[in-house]
Amino acid sequence: MPDAILDDISHRRFNPLRGSWILVSPHRTKRPWQGQQEGASKTTLPDYDPSCYLCPGNKRAAGDSNPKYESTYVFVNDYSAVKEEQAEYEQPANDGSLANTLLRAEPVTGKCYVITFSPTHNLTLADLQPSEILPVINTWTQIYTTHLSPKSILAEVAQPTTIAPHGQDLAAPNAQYRYMQIFENKGAAMGCSNPHPHGQVWCTTGTPEEPALELESLQKYRKEHGGSHMLVDYANLESEKKERVVFENESFLAVCPWWATWPFEVMIVARTHKRALVDFNDKDRQDLAEAIAEVTRRYDNLFETQFPYSMGLHQAPLEGTPEEINASHFHIHFYPPLLRSATVRKFLVGYEMMAEPQRDITPEQAAARLRNCGGELYRKKLN
Amino acid sequence: MPDAILDDISHRRFNPLRGSWILVSPHRTKRPWQGQQEGASKTTLPDYDPSCYLCPGNKRAAGDSNPKYESTYVFVNDYSAVKEEQAEYEQPANDGSLANTLLRAEPVTGKCYVITFSPTHNLTLADLQPSEILPVINTWTQIYTTHLSPKSILAEVAQPTTIAPHGQDLAAPNAQYRYMQIFENKGAAMGCSNPHPHGQVWCTTGTPEEPALELESLQKYRKEHGGSHMLVDYANLESEKKERVVFENESFLAVCPWWATWPFEVMIVARTHKRALVDFNDKDRQDLAEAIAEVTRRYDNLFETQFPYSMGLHQAPLEGTPEEINASHFHIHFYPPLLRSATVRKFLVGYEMMAEPQRDITPEQAAARLRNCGGELYRKKLN
Ligand SMILES: O=P(O)(O)O[C@H]1O[C@H](CO)[C@@H](O)[C@H](O)[C@H]1O
Ligand SMILES: O=P(O)(O)O[C@H]1O[C@H](CO)[C@@H](O)[C@H](O)[C@H]1O
Repeated sequence: MPDAILDDISHRRFNPLRGSWILVSPHRTKRPWQGQQEGASKTTLPDYDPSCYLCPGNKRAAGDSNPKYESTYVFVNDYSAVKEEQAEYEQPANDGSLANTLLRAEPVTGKCYVITFSPTHNLTLADLQPSEILPVINTWTQIYTTHLSPKSILAEVAQPTTIAPHGQDLAAPNAQYRYMQIFENKGAAMGCSNPHPHGQVWCTTGTPEEPALELESLQKYRKEHGGSHMLVDYANLESEKKERVVFENESFLAVCPWWATWPFEVMIVARTHKRALVDFNDKDRQDLAEAIAEVTRRYDNLFETQFPYSMGLHQAPLEGTPEEINASHFHIHFYPPLLRSATVRKFLVGYEMMAEPQRDITPEQAAARLRNCGGELYRKKLN
Repeated sequence: MPDAILDDISHRRFNPLRGSWILVSPHRTKRPWQGQQEGASKTTLPDYDPSCYLCPGNKRAAGDSNPKYESTYVFVNDYSAVKEEQAEYEQPANDGSLANTLLRAEPVTGKCYVITFSPTHNLTLADLQPSEILPVINTWTQIYTTHLSPKSILAEVAQPTTIAPHGQDLAAPNAQYRYMQIFENKGAAMGCSNPHPHGQVWCTTGTPEEPALELESLQKYRKEHGGSHMLVDYANLESEKKERVVFENESFLAVCPWWATWPFEVMIVARTHKRALVDFNDKDRQDLAEAIAEVTRRYDNLFETQFPYSMGLHQAPLEGTPEEINASHFHIHFYPPLLRSATVRKFLVGYEMMAEPQRDITPEQAAARLRNCGGELYRKKLN
C-alpha cells in the first residue's frame, strides 16, 4: 500500500466511474454490535423442490410450465417491472408551469426475463465449475445479441444466435430498447425470494441512472486521455500494484476497487478493451467463467456461508452512437452486504443515505482476506 | 391525480433535488413473496435497561458514565467515524500519473455526537407529544449553533446558546467543519444497534455527496427562477394539489414526494424560506415538533408496528458563501424500508443498485394510506 497511513485515518476516496466520493473509517469495526443478525442460510435444500417455480417441469405463477431443461432456461418474468405493451401516456406540453418543472414523468416500456443458471435447485454459482458457468455466459450473450440494435456498430461483430429450444420466450422484442441490465440478487439478505440459482435481465427504453453516469465518465476520460480507456488503465494499474487484486487470469482482473462502497465489493474487469459480451472470443468467455467461479467461491469461503450479494453487468447500451459504444467497457460489480461474519452485515443507512456512503474496512484489507480464502469450496471439504 | 394513468403504467419520475430519475412500476406489488421477513419488533422493553449505554446513570463503552439526565443528552460518539485529531495525510503531488488520477484520496476530520431523545429506554419519537419533541429540536439547534462558522451570514441570526450542564461534550469544535449531518436510524432493520431513542450528528471537513448534490440543484433553480426557492415552490404546489400531502400545519408540509424512492418515503419541508434550524422562531419549532410527531405516529399506525426508518435533516452548511447559505432550504427526509406489512420490506438491490432506483407503489397511493392512519397511536389504544 503506497499510503499505509490510510489504513488508520478517516479519509474520502474518489470513484472516477461515478464521479462521486465515499467516506472510509477504518477504525470503526471495533465498535460492539447489538443490532440485527441475519438468519443463518439454509444448507439443507433438496436438489429438486416441487413447489419451486424455477425447477424443471414445474408450474409457474402465471400458469405456464417450465420444460424439463438441462442447462439454463430463459422466460419472460411473470411479474415484470416493465412491459412491452401498456396504455399510452402523453407527457403534458411544456407550458413552463411549476407542475411542469417539478412533477416530471416519462413512460417506460421494456422486457424482463428470468434466467435459471442450472436445473439443480440447491446449487449456486459458487458450487459450479467454470465449465458449468459457461452456459450462463453464453445465454447472457444470446439475449444481448437478440436485443442489439441492427444499427449498432456492435451488430457487425455479434454472431447470429440460434435461439435454443428452451428459449421460446427469447423472441426478438417488439421495440428497440436502449439498455439491457443483466443482474443477480443472491440470498434472502439481498431480497431474493427464491434460492433456485437464477438471475434477471431488464431491458428499458431509457438508459438507467447508473449506466448513464458511468458512460458519461468513461467518455470524458477517453477524450481527456488521448483515446485510452479508464477501466483498461485501471486494470493495468491494479495488476501492477497487486494490493487490491483478488484474482487475475489472462483476460480478466477481479479487484476490490480503490473506491469500493460495500465491505467486500469486487469488480471483475476485462483487461483489454471489450465493449460488451459480443466482443468476447472463446478464451475470454472461459476466463470470465473462471473469474466468476473464483470470486463467488472465495465469497462463500470467507465466512463459511452462502454469501449474499447483488451482481450486475455493465457494458455497451443496445443502441447508441459509435462514440458511446466504443467508450463502453465490460465489467461486473459484486455488492455483498456482509461485514463481520455470516450473520452481521453492513447497513448503508442514516449517514450513508442522507450524506455519503461510508465503509468500515479498507478495500486493501478486504482484498487481502479474499486472496487468502481461495481453494476448494468449504462445503465440499465438510462432506 | 392529474394523470390517473400513472397509477397503472411503468414510468420514470424526475427528482429535481438530486437531478436523477427513478422507475415506478405500480403493478409490481401483486407478485407473491417467499423472501426474507423482518423479525417482529420487541414491544416488551423495560423503561430502564441497566445494560443500555444510553440510559441515564449507566456506564458507556469507553468507560464514561452518563449523568442522570432528564430530557435529552449529548455526548461525543465513543466510536466516531471521523475524529478531530488524526495522523496527517499528505496528498501526493499531482504528477499527472495514472495513480494520481485513478487512486485519489483526501483526509477527513470531524466530530460525531450521539443525542438521546428521552431518558426513557422504551419510548420512540412516535410515543412522544410535540411538547416532548421540542427539546430534541432545541438540542439540534444548539449543536448547529455551536458549530456554525462565525463568518457565516447565519451567525447574525443565531441565538447565543447556553450549553446545558448535560452538554459538557458540546464544546466548540477544534476546527471549523463544513457540514453537519443530523440523522436518526430507527429499528434493527435500519442498522440501529440500540433501541433507546437516539439520533446522531456527524460534522465533517468536506460537504458530503448528497447535500452537495442538493445544494447545486437548489442554487441552479434559484438562478433560473428569478430568485425563488425550489422547495418553497414545491411545498406550495403540493399544498394546492393535496394528493401527496400527509399532513400540514402553518409552517410545515409533510409530503410523499413526487419522486420518492422508498415505498413510504416522506419529506417534511418548511413552507416559507428557512435556511437552517437557526432561522426558526418558537412557532416554527412547535410546528416542526407537531409535524415530526404526526409523521412518526402515522408510520407506526400504518402496519401497527415500530416502523423502522432512517431520517435526516438537510439545511445550510456550517460554512459557505452567502449564495450557498441563502439557496439552502430546511427539510427532513424519512426513508423507511417497509412495503407490504410489518415484516415484508422493499429491497433496493440488484436492479436498483446497478441501474436505477425502482418503486412498486405510487407516492399518491402511499400518501393516501398515511393520511388515513392519523389519530391516536395504535399501542395506546391496545392498553
Ligand atoms: O452508528 P451505529 O448506530 O452503530 O451504526 C449505524 O449507523 C451508521 C451511520 O448511518 C452506519 O454507518 C452503520 O452501518 C449502522 O449500523
Ligand atoms: O424480482 P424479485 O427477485 O422478486 O425482487 C427483487 O429484485 C428486484 C430487482 O432488483 C427488486 O426490485 C425487489 O425489491 C427485490 O425483492
